[in-house]
Amino acid sequence: MLDLPVTVEGYGAIRAHAAPRDKGARRTKLLADLDAAISACELTDGATISFHHHLRNGDGVLNMVMDALSRRGLKDLHVAATSIFPVHAPLMDHIRSGTVGRISASFISGPVGEAISRGALSDAVVLRTHGGRARALDHGQLKVDAAFVAAPAADDLGNVSGRAGKTACGTLGYPLTDVEVARHVVAVTDCLLPYPVQPTDIPQGKVDHVVVVDRIGDPGGIASGTTKPAADPSSLAIGERAAAVIAASGYLSEGFSFQTGAGGISLATAAVVGRIMAERGIVGSFCSGGITGFHVKMLNDGLFRTLMDVQCFDLDAVRSYQSDPRHQSMSAATYAAPHLGGAVVDRVDAVVLGATEVDLGFNVNVTTKAGGFIIGGSGGHADTAAGSRLAIITTRLTAGGFAKIVPEVGTLTTPGETIDVVVTDAGIAVNPRRGDMGERLRAAGLPVKGIEELAAEAAAAATRPTPPRSKGRVVAVSEYRDGTVTDVVRAIEGETG
Amino acid sequence: MLDLPVTVEGYGAIRAHAAPRDKGARRTKLLADLDAAISACELTDGATISFHHHLRNGDGVLNMVMDALSRRGLKDLHVAATSIFPVHAPLMDHIRSGTVGRISASFISGPVGEAISRGALSDAVVLRTHGGRARALDHGQLKVDAAFVAAPAADDLGNVSGRAGKTACGTLGYPLTDVEVARHVVAVTDCLLPYPVQPTDIPQGKVDHVVVVDRIGDPGGIASGTTKPAADPSSLAIGERAAAVIAASGYLSEGFSFQTGAGGISLATAAVVGRIMAERGIVGSFCSGGITGFHVKMLNDGLFRTLMDVQCFDLDAVRSYQSDPRHQSMSAATYAAPHLGGAVVDRVDAVVLGATEVDLGFNVNVTTKAGGFIIGGSGGHADTAAGSRLAIITTRLTAGGFAKIVPEVGTLTTPGETIDVVVTDAGIAVNPRRGDMGERLRAAGLPVKGIEELAAEAAAAATRPTPPRSKGRVVAVSEYRDGTVTDVVRAIEGETG
Repeated sequence: MLDLPVTVEGYGAIRAHAAPRDKGARRTKLLADLDAAISACELTDGATISFHHHLRNGDGVLNMVMDALSRRGLKDLHVAATSIFPVHAPLMDHIRSGTVGRISASFISGPVGEAISRGALSDAVVLRTHGGRARALDHGQLKVDAAFVAAPAADDLGNVSGRAGKTACGTLGYPLTDVEVARHVVAVTDCLLPYPVQPTDIPQGKVDHVVVVDRIGDPGGIASGTTKPAADPSSLAIGERAAAVIAASGYLSEGFSFQTGAGGISLATAAVVGRIMAERGIVGSFCSGGITGFHVKMLNDGLFRTLMDVQCFDLDAVRSYQSDPRHQSMSAATYAAPHLGGAVVDRVDAVVLGATEVDLGFNVNVTTKAGGFIIGGSGGHADTAAGSRLAIITTRLTAGGFAKIVPEVGTLTTPGETIDVVVTDAGIAVNPRRGDMGERLRAAGLPVKGIEELAAEAAAAATRPTPPRSKGRVVAVSEYRDGTVTDVVRAIEGETG
Repeated sequence: MLDLPVTVEGYGAIRAHAAPRDKGARRTKLLADLDAAISACELTDGATISFHHHLRNGDGVLNMVMDALSRRGLKDLHVAATSIFPVHAPLMDHIRSGTVGRISASFISGPVGEAISRGALSDAVVLRTHGGRARALDHGQLKVDAAFVAAPAADDLGNVSGRAGKTACGTLGYPLTDVEVARHVVAVTDCLLPYPVQPTDIPQGKVDHVVVVDRIGDPGGIASGTTKPAADPSSLAIGERAAAVIAASGYLSEGFSFQTGAGGISLATAAVVGRIMAERGIVGSFCSGGITGFHVKMLNDGLFRTLMDVQCFDLDAVRSYQSDPRHQSMSAATYAAPHLGGAVVDRVDAVVLGATEVDLGFNVNVTTKAGGFIIGGSGGHADTAAGSRLAIITTRLTAGGFAKIVPEVGTLTTPGETIDVVVTDAGIAVNPRRGDMGERLRAAGLPVKGIEELAAEAAAAATRPTPPRSKGRVVAVSEYRDGTVTDVVRAIEGETG
């Protein structure tokens, strides 16, 4: 042993080196099963566990982990998911048994949303935007004890790839944010590859434990929604009109950046926008958000320089991400967070969004359906509306007999001051806060009307009255990206969902 | 304004949403100049500022930032660099003026090392391993107020690429760790690209400010060391012998993982190892560490599956990283940190390392030269020695007339218990802790000797006596990867460096 001083000026006390015992030891993060991982995470009653939804309605990991937690008798757990789908219906049993006491998510569809609306949980569910969830994680408002990553492929030191394996889902933008702050991170995979995985989507330093299971989910479930442009005449007409709005807006020029959802009208809009870009010889900078094969085609057609992808919406997008470096992954924080001085959403020129309801203040509801049952949540809706220069809502005047342009939304998800234009089959309304835009669109020959006029037409076309807001207790809080609250959702009694 | 409840069960107090004022505002992180960035970072006397060394002896950013800080009259700053090179000689003026009061680094060469050895700083310099620095950052022992990233290309929201620009340096493994924890991150670039940069090496969410300067450095300085296999007979003989050790060690089999430095003997070793792999039909898993064109050639020859690259050592490596997804970036933490349950170094089968001195306990000095002047530091030396199954030191018996196998090292950088084999031009010594290995190498016909025998031969061949350790005050502390101290470096008086 060397003769070291006890303290050193500018350094402090010296702890002398002692011989390490594990030279060349082959460390591994591989554990026998989920039970072992749960033990390693030292989870106790009331713990917060997080999940991501890249496998969408094909996800097997949330249910598998919750079953394991339930078997151990843990109670009052907080499920902090990015999204909950119909496949997660078993959560209802865990709520009933007391295993789950709290839920937070950015989007909830299917029977769990209905159960929440019926008051299944005594604590209010927190619905955050994708960017708001990233902010809450970074600011410690959402503290995660264990993040479970559905890993299409992994090695035994925790490098994770979304590009390999039988359940390859492409980018892993949501867990990229969780793994930065979670106390423990568990990669759950059905494809253990030799070390090191390449290329890596989540690096080993962010993962604590690796568990191999038979099957993390159903690859067919990834593309659970429509990811093709609509083909019916009414949707095509709305898409044509939304594209005309973009073309006339002044934003469709060299370097144009664009986001659409994966719905048929959104993609129909994108198809027309792409045609106009090709005609005008415009090359855009990026498409962002959830990415579909249709966006990949626009990239490959030379219409955009790059894709910023938080989640692949279909297998064509997965294949593109596997092979094309222009198709980039981004974390939820990079995508949409409001606290980092500028996210990707802050550079989007135009976004095409859907709505369950839009009201006279241009406020949008994508959280509840007519009658008040939870059927969604913001996801990136409020984030992109706030960040983009031109936020367009496309919607029919009515759906299922209910008016979609209403005096007041059933739940306020996205504030009206961030919505610029509403495009319907009956005409276009421009938010009066964007006065010049109305003139511009009129000058282009577009059928601009007042939002009140559209609401009146919608009311006339509706065959069922919009039910009044419930007066029940609060079952969910709709949090805006900055942590303020835009609205609450109240319990429904009696009627079916 | 909606009528929201004041508090909600399971949520707490409700802060009602207020209309955002900045819908669609084009945020930017671009500031006018370094001065503006320094203001934005709110740096005060005593602040810690960090730098990385991917531009090696061509780096212009450290000097530029220090000049700007000096002009503002800041005092007693802590320069937390990953490495300091001869190009950073102007630091000495900043030490003299009191602008710089503390230094920590993983490697210090050139006049700054000599000045420190002469007692230029009253506070001891902290020399950390690459992995130890990542650990100290993560554990808050090294708190960074502002990390300055030399960014070969960036966009105005802070996406950084090492793959583009006139000073493209390839991977950015070291700042990848700093940006996770620094209070402020400034990207300094001479190539501002349209948003978004692609592909991105550091994502925008990790960067707070972007500054454009004329020139971040001299691209020719990246490959400042030798990055070709040695050609002289003596080095070639050592390389042949080190390769024979690897071939006989039992570790050279399918999936073999390998690390070498960029020195001539290391690469000569790699050349022979590659030849043996090709002959035996072995495909290795990865090469790691700093990567050279020689490693790229081994990848392209099909000898390895992937490269794990913390820093490109030459422009051939940069070109490979630009175009080949098998050539992967890794952060300093992923590379070498001891606190994350397993780093890349923990999966290295064989590493070939250099030494200034090796002693009878197999301890290695790569920190000071004979006489005690600082000329380096661990970098990844101690990390890879600890993690690898087979850590080989290659060295001549003497250099500059001094013995290199000595009774006791002038500074203990890498503990002997992590070194397995010492290969010299006069024979091979095997650490007795690895008793079986000695037999194995003897059985392969290799000239295995006792380390005492090599030391005696070195002493006989030396023309200058090894100066005794200085008794001066402590000027630097050599911290091991786990935060313990392996040795201290003491001030030298009188003689020249």
